[in-house]
Amino acid sequence: MSESPPRPPPAAAVLEIGERLAEAPSKDLTTIAFSRELKAQLGLARAIGWVDLAHALSFAKAGLIPRASARSLIVALLELSAAPSSFAPKAECGDLYTNREAWLAQRTPAAGWLGLARARREALTTAYHLVLCDELLDLGEALTAFVEILCEASLRHRESLAPDYTYLQAAQPTTFGHYLQSFAWPALRDLDRLEGLYERVDRCPAGIGGVNGSAIVRNRRELSERLGFREPVRHARDAMWQADLAIEAAALAVTAIVNLDRLCEDLMIFATSEFGFVRLADRHGRASKIMPQKRNPFALAFVRGLANRLLGVQTQLAATARTPSAQMDNRLFAYEAAPDALRSATDAVRLVNACVAEMQFDEARALDALRDRSVCASDLAERVMIATGTDHRSAHGVVGRLLRTLEEKGQCLAQATLGDLRGALRDVGLPVTGVTEELLRSALDPMVCVAARSDVGGACSFEVRAMAETAADAARKVREAVATKRAHRQAALQRLHAEVEDFARGA
Amino acid sequence: MSESPPRPPPAAAVLEIGERLAEAPSKDLTTIAFSRELKAQLGLARAIGWVDLAHALSFAKAGLIPRASARSLIVALLELSAAPSSFAPKAECGDLYTNREAWLAQRTPAAGWLGLARARREALTTAYHLVLCDELLDLGEALTAFVEILCEASLRHRESLAPDYTYLQAAQPTTFGHYLQSFAWPALRDLDRLEGLYERVDRCPAGIGGVNGSAIVRNRRELSERLGFREPVRHARDAMWQADLAIEAAALAVTAIVNLDRLCEDLMIFATSEFGFVRLADRHGRASKIMPQKRNPFALAFVRGLANRLLGVQTQLAATARTPSAQMDNRLFAYEAAPDALRSATDAVRLVNACVAEMQFDEARALDALRDRSVCASDLAERVMIATGTDHRSAHGVVGRLLRTLEEKGQCLAQATLGDLRGALRDVGLPVTGVTEELLRSALDPMVCVAARSDVGGACSFEVRAMAETAADAARKVREAVATKRAHRQAALQRLHAEVEDFARGA
Amino acid sequence: MSESPPRPPPAAAVLEIGERLAEAPSKDLTTIAFSRELKAQLGLARAIGWVDLAHALSFAKAGLIPRASARSLIVALLELSAAPSSFAPKAECGDLYTNREAWLAQRTPAAGWLGLARARREALTTAYHLVLCDELLDLGEALTAFVEILCEASLRHRESLAPDYTYLQAAQPTTFGHYLQSFAWPALRDLDRLEGLYERVDRCPAGIGGVNGSAIVRNRRELSERLGFREPVRHARDAMWQADLAIEAAALAVTAIVNLDRLCEDLMIFATSEFGFVRLADRHGRASKIMPQKRNPFALAFVRGLANRLLGVQTQLAATARTPSAQMDNRLFAYEAAPDALRSATDAVRLVNACVAEMQFDEARALDALRDRSVCASDLAERVMIATGTDHRSAHGVVGRLLRTLEEKGQCLAQATLGDLRGALRDVGLPVTGVTEELLRSALDPMVCVAARSDVGGACSFEVRAMAETAADAARKVREAVATKRAHRQAALQRLHAEVEDFARGA
Amino acid sequence: MSESPPRPPPAAAVLEIGERLAEAPSKDLTTIAFSRELKAQLGLARAIGWVDLAHALSFAKAGLIPRASARSLIVALLELSAAPSSFAPKAECGDLYTNREAWLAQRTPAAGWLGLARARREALTTAYHLVLCDELLDLGEALTAFVEILCEASLRHRESLAPDYTYLQAAQPTTFGHYLQSFAWPALRDLDRLEGLYERVDRCPAGIGGVNGSAIVRNRRELSERLGFREPVRHARDAMWQADLAIEAAALAVTAIVNLDRLCEDLMIFATSEFGFVRLADRHGRASKIMPQKRNPFALAFVRGLANRLLGVQTQLAATARTPSAQMDNRLFAYEAAPDALRSATDAVRLVNACVAEMQFDEARALDALRDRSVCASDLAERVMIATGTDHRSAHGVVGRLLRTLEEKGQCLAQATLGDLRGALRDVGLPVTGVTEELLRSALDPMVCVAARSDVGGACSFEVRAMAETAADAARKVREAVATKRAHRQAALQRLHAEVEDFARGA
Repeated sequence: MSESPPRPPPAAAVLEIGERLAEAPSKDLTTIAFSRELKAQLGLARAIGWVDLAHALSFAKAGLIPRASARSLIVALLELSAAPSSFAPKAECGDLYTNREAWLAQRTPAAGWLGLARARREALTTAYHLVLCDELLDLGEALTAFVEILCEASLRHRESLAPDYTYLQAAQPTTFGHYLQSFAWPALRDLDRLEGLYERVDRCPAGIGGVNGSAIVRNRRELSERLGFREPVRHARDAMWQADLAIEAAALAVTAIVNLDRLCEDLMIFATSEFGFVRLADRHGRASKIMPQKRNPFALAFVRGLANRLLGVQTQLAATARTPSAQMDNRLFAYEAAPDALRSATDAVRLVNACVAEMQFDEARALDALRDRSVCASDLAERVMIATGTDHRSAHGVVGRLLRTLEEKGQCLAQATLGDLRGALRDVGLPVTGVTEELLRSALDPMVCVAARSDVGGACSFEVRAMAETAADAARKVREAVATKRAHRQAALQRLHAEVEDFARGA
Repeated sequence: MSESPPRPPPAAAVLEIGERLAEAPSKDLTTIAFSRELKAQLGLARAIGWVDLAHALSFAKAGLIPRASARSLIVALLELSAAPSSFAPKAECGDLYTNREAWLAQRTPAAGWLGLARARREALTTAYHLVLCDELLDLGEALTAFVEILCEASLRHRESLAPDYTYLQAAQPTTFGHYLQSFAWPALRDLDRLEGLYERVDRCPAGIGGVNGSAIVRNRRELSERLGFREPVRHARDAMWQADLAIEAAALAVTAIVNLDRLCEDLMIFATSEFGFVRLADRHGRASKIMPQKRNPFALAFVRGLANRLLGVQTQLAATARTPSAQMDNRLFAYEAAPDALRSATDAVRLVNACVAEMQFDEARALDALRDRSVCASDLAERVMIATGTDHRSAHGVVGRLLRTLEEKGQCLAQATLGDLRGALRDVGLPVTGVTEELLRSALDPMVCVAARSDVGGACSFEVRAMAETAADAARKVREAVATKRAHRQAALQRLHAEVEDFARGA
Repeated sequence: MSESPPRPPPAAAVLEIGERLAEAPSKDLTTIAFSRELKAQLGLARAIGWVDLAHALSFAKAGLIPRASARSLIVALLELSAAPSSFAPKAECGDLYTNREAWLAQRTPAAGWLGLARARREALTTAYHLVLCDELLDLGEALTAFVEILCEASLRHRESLAPDYTYLQAAQPTTFGHYLQSFAWPALRDLDRLEGLYERVDRCPAGIGGVNGSAIVRNRRELSERLGFREPVRHARDAMWQADLAIEAAALAVTAIVNLDRLCEDLMIFATSEFGFVRLADRHGRASKIMPQKRNPFALAFVRGLANRLLGVQTQLAATARTPSAQMDNRLFAYEAAPDALRSATDAVRLVNACVAEMQFDEARALDALRDRSVCASDLAERVMIATGTDHRSAHGVVGRLLRTLEEKGQCLAQATLGDLRGALRDVGLPVTGVTEELLRSALDPMVCVAARSDVGGACSFEVRAMAETAADAARKVREAVATKRAHRQAALQRLHAEVEDFARGA
Repeated sequence: MSESPPRPPPAAAVLEIGERLAEAPSKDLTTIAFSRELKAQLGLARAIGWVDLAHALSFAKAGLIPRASARSLIVALLELSAAPSSFAPKAECGDLYTNREAWLAQRTPAAGWLGLARARREALTTAYHLVLCDELLDLGEALTAFVEILCEASLRHRESLAPDYTYLQAAQPTTFGHYLQSFAWPALRDLDRLEGLYERVDRCPAGIGGVNGSAIVRNRRELSERLGFREPVRHARDAMWQADLAIEAAALAVTAIVNLDRLCEDLMIFATSEFGFVRLADRHGRASKIMPQKRNPFALAFVRGLANRLLGVQTQLAATARTPSAQMDNRLFAYEAAPDALRSATDAVRLVNACVAEMQFDEARALDALRDRSVCASDLAERVMIATGTDHRSAHGVVGRLLRTLEEKGQCLAQATLGDLRGALRDVGLPVTGVTEELLRSALDPMVCVAARSDVGGACSFEVRAMAETAADAARKVREAVATKRAHRQAALQRLHAEVEDFARGA
C-alpha cells in the first residue's frame, strides 16, 4: 500500500492549484475574501480539532484509512489540537480547514486522508454546532443567575415603595421589588426558548459526505455519539445547510438582550440626579475626562449599544440565509456571528447581573416621587366608584377634574380635602354618600394601594414573595439541566480523547 | 344607585377632553398619530369583542357592576361583536378601544362601566394574544401540509435522478425526491418552534389593572379560563408589556419563510429554459404585457418579496422593543405587525404548497444535466482511493487532473476511458491495480452513486422513504395537536358566548 | 384599419388567459399574491393616470395609434383619471396596471393600444418616480419648517439656562436655545441629502419598452418633458430597475426621523415630573383610561414608534434589492414602502413641529437642575489650571476629589468655600496662588460659563443668534427651491392635461 | 510654574480611580465592556495621533500649555504616532484615548496637558471623521474603476448578442455590452452620493470642549485647517454627536454593494454549466475539497455574503442612533462599523473589478440561448401590429397563441412559418396584409431587433458606445476630484507634521 507522492508547498497543495484550478487565487481574492472568511472561522478552531479527531478515528476503525497512516494522522491532529504556535492560520492557505490541512501536510503525508468522504463544510458545520451548544449552555447559566439575582432583589425590596411609570410618567404605586422582578419572567421565557434551540442544535451533521450522504461508509450515528451529540441531524442535505438555527440563535440573543436593555434604560433614568432612586456602583461607571463631577453609568449605556449590535446581527443572519439553497455564503459570517451573538448576550447578562447585585436603591428618593400622591388617582377613582355606586367612567372623570382644580390652585392630590372630593362629585351631580375621610386617606396611602393588589401577579408583598419562589425554583431546575448537559458533552469529549490517545499509542 | 350623567359628544367623552386634558387632540395628532395607531389595531377588532364580554361578565358576576347596567352593557357589547355597519372607527375617537367605547356610549350609559379596573392596554393586549394564538394555529396547519406535500413529492421522485448543486454548480448525483424533502425538515423545526411560542402566547394578560394588579378584584384565573387561555401570565407587570413574544413571532415567520424562499429561489432557477427541470403550473405564473412568450413564475418571486418584507418586520419589532420599559410605542405597530408576519408566512406556505403540488418535473432535462458525469467525480475519486489504497487527497488530485486533461481535449468525464484514468494515476506515480473498467463504469453511473448513499439521511431510495415516513408521522401529530388546541379555544368562546347571552337574558 | 375583436371578460382579457397561459390564476395566487401586490400599488393610482395619458398622447402624435382609436383611448383615460367610483381595483384583475386596462377595455376597444411598446413595469415605475418626487418635496417643506421653528425657539431661549446632559447626567451649563438648535443642523443635512436624491429621482424611466429600449419609436425625451421630469434616466435597463433609489429614500427617511426621535426621547425625559423642564401641550398628549392623573406624551412616543417602523422599512428595501437583476419582487412592496417611508417622515416632522412650537419651557425647574453647580466642575478645573499653571489632569483630579469630599459631608459644589478648594489643592501639593474667591464664584456661575463659550458653534448668546440666522437663511433657500420645483412639476402636468384635452376634442 | 505630582500606575491614573470614582472598574466591566469598546476603536489609532498633535500644538501656540511641557508632550506624541511596539492597548486602561494617555503618562508628566479643554469623545470623533474621509476617497477610487471597467467591457461586447432576462426568463434580445453597462450607472449615482457625504464628513468637530464649546480658547477654525478639513462643523453640540453620518455611510455602502451583488448573482447563474455564458477566471474561484470537478465561483458568493453583512451593519447603525441625545453608545461600535462598512464596500468593488475584467464571455452559448427566438416575440407582435394596423393587445394575443400552438407541435418560434403566423391572425379575424416573409424574418433576427433599439439608453451599438463615453467621462471627473481631495488632505497633514516637528525642535 503506497503513501502519496512528495508534497507541494502548503497553499497550492490544499487549494488544488495546478490540479483542478489552473491558477493560484488572486491577491484580491486572498486579501479580501479568504482573509475575512478565515477570520470569521477562528472561533471554531478548538471545536474543529475534536471533529477531525472523531472523523479520523471513525474512518480508521472502519478500516478505510490504513492503520499506520491513521496513527500518524491522529498523532498530528492531537498535536494541532493543543494549538501550537506553529499553527498561524493565514489567508494564503484558504480557510480554517485548509490551513489545518496545510499544517498537517507539512508534518505527515497521512494528512492526505483527512478529507476522506467529507466536504470541508461538514467539518466546519459540525464544529459550529459544538460551539453553539457551548454558547447556549453559557447563556443558560448566565440567565439563570439573572433570574436568581432579580428574585433575591425583589424579595429584599418587596416593601420598598416606588412609582410604576408608563411613558415615564408616574402611573401607580408599586414596590421596587415587584418592578425588578418583572424582568425575571421574560428571562425565564428566554430559558425556555434556549432549551428548545439547544434540542435543535444538539444534533450532529457529521458524516454527510459531499451533500447527501457518503457513498463509502455508514458512520453518522457513531460520529454523533463520539462528539457528544444527541443524534445525527436526520436528513443529510438539510444537515449541511440548516439556516434556521442561526436565525433562531440571533433571535434568542435579541430577546435576551432586549430584556436587559429595557432594564438598563430604566436604570439610566432612575440613576439621574433628577430621579435619584438608584445609584450604580462606581466600579460599573466611568469618569469623564473633562467633567470632574461625572460618574457615567457606562455599563448601562454599553448594554444598549450591544443590544443594537445584535439587532444588526439578526438582520445579517436572516438576510444571509435568503439565497438559493446550498450557498457557501449562508455560512460565511454565520460561523462567527451566531456564536458571537450568543456570547454577547451572555456577557451582557453577566454585566447586568453585577450591576443589579451591587446597585443601591434610595428609598427616600423613591418615596419623594410618590409624595404628591398623583399615582393614587386611579385607586381613589375606584374607591369612589364602589362607595357611590357610580360608574367607572364618571368616577374617573371626577378625579380627573379634581386634579385639574387642585393644579390650578397650585396643589397636588396629597393636599386634597374631603371637601374638595365631595365638591367634585357634586359638581357633576353625583352622590357623596360613602365618600369619607377614611376612604380618601386609604386611597391616598400608597402602601394600602399596593397591599390591595393581591391577585395573581400583583404587587402585594406576599404575591411578590410567592412569584419569587416560583421563578427561583424554575431557575434552579434550569441550572441543573444546564449542568447535566454540560457534563454529558464533556464526558463524551473526554472519552473521545482517551480513545484517540489509545489509538495513537497503538493500544 | 345612580347612573352617570348625560354624555358629551363621543370623541370628547372617551378622550377625557375637558376632564384631565384641557384641549382636544390637535389635528396633526389625530390625522398622523391616532389614525396610524387605529389602523394598526383593526385586526384586533373581533378578538377585543370577546375580551370585553369576558371582562364585563366577570365584573358583573363579582357584583362590581350593578346588574341592570351590566345587562345593558353586555347587550350593547353583543351587538358590537356582530360588527354592525354603524361601527366605523375613526381617528377622531382615538384608538380601537375608545372608538368602541364611543359607540357604546351612544347606546347606553352603562358604557361607563367598561373601563372598570382596566387600562385600555389590558384589553388590547389580551385581544392581541387571542389573535396571535389563532395565527399560530393557522401557520401550524399550513406548515403541516407543507411537510406532507414535500414528503409525498419526495416519495414520488425518490428515484428521479438529478444533480445536487452547491454554488449553483452541479455537485453530486441525487434524486429530486431527496432534494425536495430537504425542505420538509426545517419546516418540522419551525413546527417545534411554533409549539414553544404557542405555549408562551397561550397565557392571559387580562385582569392586571393599570400596571401591577387590580386593587378591587381577584379574577385573573377566571378571565383566563373564560377566554380559553391555559393560565394567566404570572407577573402582572410583565403581562402588560411582554416584548419578547413579538420578536419571537417575527423570527418564527422569518425562519419559516426563509425556508420557502430558498426552495422558491431554486425553483426559479430550475424553471429557466436553460435548466428546465421544473415547470410551474400556468395558474401560478403571470403573462407579460409586452413579451408574448413569457410565463413568469410570479408566485416564486412573490414569496421572495414577502420574505424580504418579513425581514423588515423582524427589524421593526426588535427595534420597537428597545426602549425604557412600559412604553406604549412598544405595541403601537406590533399589534398589527406580529400577527401580520405570521399571516404572511402562512399565506406564503399555502402558495408554495400549491406550487409544489402542481409543478411538473422533467426527468429528461434533469438527466441531461448529469450527462457529462462531472457530478460523479467524487465517487470516482473515492473508488480509486479504495481500490488503490492511495490517500484521499491524492485520489482527488488525480481525478481533478483527469478532468482538466479531458477538458483540454474538449471531452467530459463521461468520455473518460480506463486508459485515461490509469494514465492520470501513473502520471503521479500511483498504482493502477484494481482500477478496472467496472470501477470506472460504476463510479460514473449516477444511479449506483445514489444507491450507495445509504447511511442516515442519505439519498438512496429506501432512506428517502424511511425519512418521508418519519417526517409525515411527525406532521400528523402536529396536525392533531393543532386541531385539539383550536377546538379548545373555540369551545371556550362558545361557552363564553352562551354565558353572556344567558346573562343578557337575565337567565 | 380594423379594431380588435369583441373582448372576453375583464380578468381573462388582461391576464392573457387562454392566450399565453392555459389557465386562470389560482385562488391562492389571486388572494395571496395579486391582492398584496395590488394593495401596494394603490398609492400610484393618480400618478399612473398621468403616465398613461402622456404615453397615449405621445404614441398618437407619432402616428402609431390610429387617430380615432387614440382619441377614444384618451377620452377613457381622462375619465379614469378622475377616479370614478366604477374603478374598484380587485385582485382578480391582477395589479393596478391590468385593473386599469380591464376598466378601459369595458369602455373602448381602443384599450388594446394602451400596452403599445411598453411593459407594465415601465408605467408603474414612471408613476413611482412621480410619486417619490412629490413626497420628497413634501418632506423638504416639512423639514424646512422644522429648522425655522427650532431657530425661532433657539432665539427665544438663547439665554434660558439649563444643563446639557450626557448619559442623562448633567454635564455642563448651556441654554435651552443652544440645545434645541442642535437638532436644526442635522435637519439641514437631511435637506442636502434630499436635494441630492431629488436630482436622482427627477429622471424619467418612460419609453424604455420591454427592457432595453423600444424597437418602434424614439420618444423618451418627449415623455420625460411631458411629465415634468428633468431628463430621461439615461440607460434603459438601469431605468427599469434602479434599486438604489428606494434604499436611499429609506435612509433619508431614517436619518430625518432619527433626528426627531432623539429630540422626542429627550423631551419625554424633560417632561417627566422629576425633570420638569418641559410641558407638552395637552393637545399633543393623551389621557389614560384608568389613571385620572395622567397626561401621556403620546405624540413623542408615537414618533419613536414610527422611527422604529422606518428602521424596518430600511431593512426591507435593502433586502428586497438583493436578488439577481430584473426581478419583479424588487418593486413588489417598494412601490408602497419607499413613498410611505418618506410620507411617514414628513408626518413625523409635522407632528414634532407642532409639539415644539407649542410646548412650554419651565425656566425655574431648569435652574433648579443647575442649583448644585456640579455642572460647573469642568469650568472650575479649567480656571484652577490657568490660575495655578498646573496641568489639566491635575486640576481635574483636584476638583474630582473636592467633589467627593463635599459629597461625604453631604454638600454640593455650590457650597464649596475657597478654603475647601485651596485645601484640595494643597492636599496634592499644588499651589493656591491665583485661586481666589472671585475665581470660585465666576467658575460656579452658569451664566458666566455659558457666556465664555464663544467660539464657532458655542453656547454663548450671540453665537446662538448667529447660527440661528445662518440656519434660517439656509432653510429659506430650500423653501424657495422646493417651491420652484413643485411649480415646475405642476406646470408640466397642466400643460399635459391641456394637450390631451385638446387632442380628445380633436383640436 | 509647577508640573504635576508623581503619577499613580497607568490604569488608575487615567480612569480617575481614587479621584472621582471610589473603585476600579469591575472585572466584568473591563473584560466585557471596555475590551469591546477598545477593539472597536483600534481603527482610529493612526488618525487620533494626528488629532492629538494638532490639539497639543494649537493649545501650545495659544500659550495655554507651558512651552516646555508642550514640547515634551509633542515629542511623546510623535513617538506614539509611529505606533511603537510598547503601545499595546489593553482594556484595563480603558478605551483608545485613555490607553494613549496611560502610555504618555509613563513617559512624561506633560501628558497631564493632553486632556485640556477636551472630552475624549472630541478626539475620537475627530479621528473618526478623518478615517471616514479616507475611506470615502478609497471607495470613490474603486467605484470609478468599476465604471471604467464596465464601460470598456460594454464597448468590447456591444455587439455580442445575448438574451436579457426578467424573472430569469429570457425576455428580449440584447447585447452583453448593454447588459453589463447597466451596472455602471448605479455606480455613478453612488459616486454622486459619495460626493455629498464627503462634503458632510469633511468638517471638523475639534475644539468643542465638553459639549457646547470651550470656555477657554477659540481655536476651532485653526484645528479644522490644520487637520485638512474644509471647515468646522458649525454647531458644537451637533458636532459632538452627528448620528446621521454613520447611517448615511452605511446606506452608501449598501447601495454600492447591492449593485455589485446583483451583478454577481447574475454572473453566478450565467456561470452555471446550464447557462454557460460566462466563465470566471480560476483565480477567483475555489476548488472543492471533495468534488474534484468543481470550480466554485467563490468571489461571487463572497460578495453576496458581504452584502448581507452590510445590511446588518445598516440596521445596527440606525438602531444605535435611536436614543436620547448625547449617549456614548451612539458611537460605541459606530467608530468601527461605519468605516468598516465603507471599507467592505471598497473591497467588494475591487474584487468584482478583477472578476469582471478577467472573466470570459462565451458568445456561442449566449447565441444558443437565443436560438429558439422566443425572445423575439414582442418584436414580432409590434411588427404585426404596425403592418396590419391592429391594436397592440390583439397583436400580442396573436403571437401568444402562435407560441402555444407551436409549443403543442413541439416547435419553437424560430420554426414558425409565414403560414403559421397568418393562420394565427386569421383565427381571430385579423387581416394579414403586410404580414410578409420579410417581416417575419426581420422580427426573428435578434441583431435586427437590437439595432432598432436606438432611442436614449437603448441597446443598439452606437447608443451603447455613446453611453459608455458619457459614463467614462463622468468617472474620469470623479477620479480627478478624488485625487484632488486626497492631495489636499495629505498636504495638510504633512504641514502639520512639519509644524509639530519644528515645535518639538524648539524652532
